[in-house]
Amino acid sequence: MQLGIVGLGRMGGNISRRLMRGGHQTVVWDRDQSSVAKLGEEGAVKAADLADLVRQMDAPRAVWVMLPAGAPTEDTIQQLADLLEPDDVIIDGGNTFYKDDIRRAKALAERQIHYVDVGTSGGVWGLDRGFCMMIGGEAKIFERLDPLFACLAPGVGDIPRTKGREGEHNNAENGYIHAGPAGSGHFVKMIHNGIEYGMMQAFAEGFDILKTKNSTALPEDQRFDLNLAEIAEVWRRGSVVSSWLLDLTADALVGDPALDGYSGSVSDSGEGRWTIDAAVEQAVPVPVLAGSLFARFRSRQESTYGDKLLSAMRFGFGGHIEVPK
Amino acid sequence: MQLGIVGLGRMGGNISRRLMRGGHQTVVWDRDQSSVAKLGEEGAVKAADLADLVRQMDAPRAVWVMLPAGAPTEDTIQQLADLLEPDDVIIDGGNTFYKDDIRRAKALAERQIHYVDVGTSGGVWGLDRGFCMMIGGEAKIFERLDPLFACLAPGVGDIPRTKGREGEHNNAENGYIHAGPAGSGHFVKMIHNGIEYGMMQAFAEGFDILKTKNSTALPEDQRFDLNLAEIAEVWRRGSVVSSWLLDLTADALVGDPALDGYSGSVSDSGEGRWTIDAAVEQAVPVPVLAGSLFARFRSRQESTYGDKLLSAMRFGFGGHIEVPK
Amino acid sequence: MQLGIVGLGRMGGNISRRLMRGGHQTVVWDRDQSSVAKLGEEGAVKAADLADLVRQMDAPRAVWVMLPAGAPTEDTIQQLADLLEPDDVIIDGGNTFYKDDIRRAKALAERQIHYVDVGTSGGVWGLDRGFCMMIGGEAKIFERLDPLFACLAPGVGDIPRTKGREGEHNNAENGYIHAGPAGSGHFVKMIHNGIEYGMMQAFAEGFDILKTKNSTALPEDQRFDLNLAEIAEVWRRGSVVSSWLLDLTADALVGDPALDGYSGSVSDSGEGRWTIDAAVEQAVPVPVLAGSLFARFRSRQESTYGDKLLSAMRFGFGGHIEVPK
Amino acid sequence: MQLGIVGLGRMGGNISRRLMRGGHQTVVWDRDQSSVAKLGEEGAVKAADLADLVRQMDAPRAVWVMLPAGAPTEDTIQQLADLLEPDDVIIDGGNTFYKDDIRRAKALAERQIHYVDVGTSGGVWGLDRGFCMMIGGEAKIFERLDPLFACLAPGVGDIPRTKGREGEHNNAENGYIHAGPAGSGHFVKMIHNGIEYGMMQAFAEGFDILKTKNSTALPEDQRFDLNLAEIAEVWRRGSVVSSWLLDLTADALVGDPALDGYSGSVSDSGEGRWTIDAAVEQAVPVPVLAGSLFARFRSRQESTYGDKLLSAMRFGFGGHIEVPK
Repeated sequence: MQLGIVGLGRMGGNISRRLMRGGHQTVVWDRDQSSVAKLGEEGAVKAADLADLVRQMDAPRAVWVMLPAGAPTEDTIQQLADLLEPDDVIIDGGNTFYKDDIRRAKALAERQIHYVDVGTSGGVWGLDRGFCMMIGGEAKIFERLDPLFACLAPGVGDIPRTKGREGEHNNAENGYIHAGPAGSGHFVKMIHNGIEYGMMQAFAEGFDILKTKNSTALPEDQRFDLNLAEIAEVWRRGSVVSSWLLDLTADALVGDPALDGYSGSVSDSGEGRWTIDAAVEQAVPVPVLAGSLFARFRSRQESTYGDKLLSAMRFGFGGHIEVPK
Repeated sequence: MQLGIVGLGRMGGNISRRLMRGGHQTVVWDRDQSSVAKLGEEGAVKAADLADLVRQMDAPRAVWVMLPAGAPTEDTIQQLADLLEPDDVIIDGGNTFYKDDIRRAKALAERQIHYVDVGTSGGVWGLDRGFCMMIGGEAKIFERLDPLFACLAPGVGDIPRTKGREGEHNNAENGYIHAGPAGSGHFVKMIHNGIEYGMMQAFAEGFDILKTKNSTALPEDQRFDLNLAEIAEVWRRGSVVSSWLLDLTADALVGDPALDGYSGSVSDSGEGRWTIDAAVEQAVPVPVLAGSLFARFRSRQESTYGDKLLSAMRFGFGGHIEVPK
Repeated sequence: MQLGIVGLGRMGGNISRRLMRGGHQTVVWDRDQSSVAKLGEEGAVKAADLADLVRQMDAPRAVWVMLPAGAPTEDTIQQLADLLEPDDVIIDGGNTFYKDDIRRAKALAERQIHYVDVGTSGGVWGLDRGFCMMIGGEAKIFERLDPLFACLAPGVGDIPRTKGREGEHNNAENGYIHAGPAGSGHFVKMIHNGIEYGMMQAFAEGFDILKTKNSTALPEDQRFDLNLAEIAEVWRRGSVVSSWLLDLTADALVGDPALDGYSGSVSDSGEGRWTIDAAVEQAVPVPVLAGSLFARFRSRQESTYGDKLLSAMRFGFGGHIEVPK
Repeated sequence: MQLGIVGLGRMGGNISRRLMRGGHQTVVWDRDQSSVAKLGEEGAVKAADLADLVRQMDAPRAVWVMLPAGAPTEDTIQQLADLLEPDDVIIDGGNTFYKDDIRRAKALAERQIHYVDVGTSGGVWGLDRGFCMMIGGEAKIFERLDPLFACLAPGVGDIPRTKGREGEHNNAENGYIHAGPAGSGHFVKMIHNGIEYGMMQAFAEGFDILKTKNSTALPEDQRFDLNLAEIAEVWRRGSVVSSWLLDLTADALVGDPALDGYSGSVSDSGEGRWTIDAAVEQAVPVPVLAGSLFARFRSRQESTYGDKLLSAMRFGFGGHIEVPK
């Protein structure tokens, strides 16, 4: 099959590569022409601009936009909508807010252009391992694009089969699903990231307690000087916390057990925040997902205005003077 | 009445003063003899050591220990127990863990010495406003010491009466209660402090949002440059968050609205921690009380090992590089 | 001065009454004509519909809309905008989301109609105690309406003056402030409610620990059968948690210490949710404000799907069988 | 090698079986003689009582106690201490609080009896998959018992090697570690369980948002009727939340996607609680680990006293009437 790809960063480039490996054709464009040239050398059809990309494709077209969420994606989709024809498909594979998907799908439907949102997990590992995809849009379009998704997905692999599943492996077991109408793909991916934040923070807190168990603030006979790299390693075998995130933890701790290479200023992305907004909108109590987002917010500040206010109240009430950090 | 007082720091000294103002006699000792001398000038009976203090008092004695919790209090009570006689009373007015009270009361009962624990709130304001006291111990001993507690307490004051209360004002309305057996005074005071942490943190977080509403990270037409001192002041009148802590906030913000005088490194004391331990022991969900304690823990660190682990996992999974603080 | 009032529920009616007590004239309308008739008997000018209300007022008019946030307020403002003239003022005294205020103020400015948002705290107590008001809009309009705000506000009262404040009492000390441009009044009120949630939850958790300290799950010599009404009362005198919310707690506990009159299904309103959304937008860590909102979400459910999933995982991993509630 | 085993429940029985499969001899006792008989049929040496077990073993002995933490374990160790000889070893493989290990190791050292604590993860899967073990005690005793641990552990398996590890696989890669002195094994296992709680709750909250995305409280065009079993399945392939807990989630959802088989009343065990106590003792902020424990506490109650107090305050302030659940 043929796929247009706009945006050839790490993700877009690897999507193109994995599809070509699978025998598909990709028509690619990026405002950075060197990325286009590079993919061209690897076999992709090069486009000079969006119009050229559309021109070089056969109808009905499918163009995968893989750009930063927000203005870059929005503008590109706007331009594509003016260039494409009825029955063509725009795929947003980025990290778009799902309510934007719902809005766009409605607007594009008036022009008979189909809209598909693909939540993609896989990070830098996707080229080789495949991409786990949660896909929103019309069922018939999902089916039309199935060969592309099947190629990009990880496949069944050697992962033990879930108890109760039988017969032929379905899409989900191959690593991609049709989640529902437009927006649902990004919605499911958004929650995935929210869960990821919570799991990461669970490990962060646990290892923090292990690390500080050797603090001189504790009675000497109650201190343990624990080998965190060995602990991460042993948990990878037979323990209930075994997970990809634990594997990554083990990787990190082997070389740099003190994690001196990191300042601990942790970024967050839209999905983590939108997850909390969704929970608030749906009245779902999410102490862990919210707590993990707040920990990241806090990690990026030396001190907060709120902390200073606590000190000020303590001084006002009890004459307490701060012990500096 | 007569009261022995051991420990003449801010609290112990003011307890002595307020009792003397009320016509009671205090016999005082502190290892810092200059404090003893000072109180002596103000009318207190000076003691040269613990034995001397006991010797100068009439049986049955009551000795109020007002020292830092832990070893200083424990040792002093041990010594007093050896000096006192049956039917004498030891009062611990410090911030002792209530399980230590239960243990001590049992041990002292074997020598027929009574034990009373007094949780005291009032900070630096107690001398003039009076001390709010939560008292644990035998009912008959609480009654014996009632004149002292009544003198130390704030009294009814001009606080509007609680709906449904009638007739003569009782102890609680005067600012002191007999909470129950030994330990219950400190237990109630401990929970009081836990609640205090939660309320303080609620204000801290709210003012933090008000403060950052002027951040350049927000769209320009959605920023507000709010006057936090005026906001604290207006809430003091007729709003449901009006409270002593809000008064202290208003005090602090008038002179230093940016709170530049504080680094935001916030201490915590035993009560806040024991409150969480009690909740865990009793299986009570306390997200707010725990969250406020954790905020203090976090405020004293530049970054945590846990934060660094988050960065390390993000790097391992997505090749994300930290944006330094 | 003259004020039009649309919406004569508890708040709107009392605003009218307090203004009339202060010598102002109110022109009132509500779709429930019996409320209009009642206020008419108390001295208000009755209007038959919105157009009639506008017709009976002198320009420049000021109309206070006091309706449920959302469609009722939005529709009414839309209609008023069509009826009013340049330089007239629309006041939204309800619980509107502040971004709606910003949008409306912009739209109305094109018609030279002024928009003022008033965040109002005071509950059922406002008629007698006065309303604490946080006001957003143009400075010159705030000044124009000052006599109305001054009348509605609680005034200085007998509240001790904040340290560092001197000279004549300003607006804030009288219980109302000009917070900033349109939207800022509701923004400040929104944060106020967020803080209120946190403070309430702090008390809720603290009293929960006090209550369950008598649980038979604890060792017998560590149980206390505490008198919660007396504890709330004693904290009202000289303790650092003294506050209006504590007063309300004391009121409630006198008559019904077991709180058997309540099921514990706790509602939440827009402000509590928007506070979390604002914190997330501004990257402010708010564990306590969020935790208090989540506790309310949780309080309204018998069990959550999430809880069931925990049970399912435990069964899958360890063969653990649930102990029913 | 030879190992005595006391306590033949699911864990103790399977430890005996796995060791016998590996060619070791086990001498077993349980107060339930039918368990002893059953293991005897499978090849174990049966003991009539503790003294008999000790008598049948060759010095230096090693006796693994696999009983519920608390009194059953404590009493058994007490009795064994009286029966064993210098240089014998007592192993506690249960869920003991690590401070009890430290205390016991000191006491037993005075009798020249060695003490080893083994934190064991593996649930009902351990017999076949092996047990992941975190071991505390003297290094020379750990080495003496190494053949037993190596047999019980899962071994390297087909788990991809951690980046940076080279050469021969060490103990950790085989699924067991010597964590440090007595108590450290259970300490590491305790933190493991704390992390497990956090991860489980992250999944619980995420799936709760997915589930309620179809709520009629949402605007109709924003609802998604998501297939949770398919979502869990797809995340098992290539997504960063892939983990054993996700596998268990997928297992559970295939057969019963509504989880109707569960009431959602979730138990917690000592480790989850002690983890929070340790964090509090070490001043580590653990919002996620604590939040996940509190969610379990809350799950077991219909309503809390705290919730009722919130309702009571809301009624007092605003006249708000509860909407029943």
